[in-house]
Amino acid sequence: METDIISLSPIGIVKSEIKDRKCMPLGGVEARIEVFPKYIEALERIDESSHLWILSWFHKAPRDVMKVVPRKVNPQSGKFGVFAVRTPVRPNPIALTLVKLNKVQENILYVAGLDAVDGTPVLDIKPYYKHDIVLSYRTPDIDNKNDSIKKSAK
Amino acid sequence: METDIISLSPIGIVKSEIKDRKCMPLGGVEARIEVFPKYIEALERIDESSHLWILSWFHKAPRDVMKVVPRKVNPQSGKFGVFAVRTPVRPNPIALTLVKLNKVQENILYVAGLDAVDGTPVLDIKPYYKHDIVLSYRTPDIDNKNDSIKKSAK
Repeated sequence: METDIISLSPIGIVKSEIKDRKCMPLGGVEARIEVFPKYIEALERIDESSHLWILSWFHKAPRDVMKVVPRKVNPQSGKFGVFAVRTPVRPNPIALTLVKLNKVQENILYVAGLDAVDGTPVLDIKPYYKHDIVLSYRTPDIDNKNDSIKKSAK
Repeated sequence: METDIISLSPIGIVKSEIKDRKCMPLGGVEARIEVFPKYIEALERIDESSHLWILSWFHKAPRDVMKVVPRKVNPQSGKFGVFAVRTPVRPNPIALTLVKLNKVQENILYVAGLDAVDGTPVLDIKPYYKHDIVLSYRTPDIDNKNDSIKKSAK
């Protein structure tokens, strides 16, 4: 099991004005997701959802790092295991981003709040559901500089 | 790009009393996630989060279906593209499940609300963050039988 290999093929690609990860604002930007034409049927009725989860592949992220200091948010927080934070650095660098769906045109999704750079492969798209909301949660205090982010997506 | 292959290795495995997908309650069950020992450092400080996203691999799901009727929730809702619903049937069957973290013991996470059957490969673990909450969202009316689910995880 531990050595099993799972193979994925991208179902689309990110088109964004941001080409360099260092230039990406924490809350992401407006961008397009070009779903490959062979998957166009899988988009049917996606416009009935206002918000989507985008699972993308951080193809440039290192995969062999086990601990990080989440510097972008709060360098004072110390080291965390990569499964305890949302860093792109992880054994399987699948990014999970909540975006607002602004418009659908054929195989193109126009979204807000996407933090993946131009050319990022997209693996999956899922609608946001009410079961994704937890109001009484606890999370480490590493995002205290972040209060204003994601506003554009909500 | 469309034909690029991305390779993943599981980072752990689900241990659950539910062996058969047909027997899985909609809101999931209490289960364990056994993270492979080589990734134990990546769990550091994960207990500072009360809720986690579990990305797992629905290894038995068909990958070539583009539209489904989400029968488990509301068969009257009609057909949806697979990207418009949370069905396990999708080109890259990555499951996204929000769970409550009850306890961590070495490399074992004890969680509630996991809908993956025993033996499901786990690809990634991420903490739940406040940016995952959207209160003003719109979603298709396919989960009206679902009002009581996930309560155990909240």
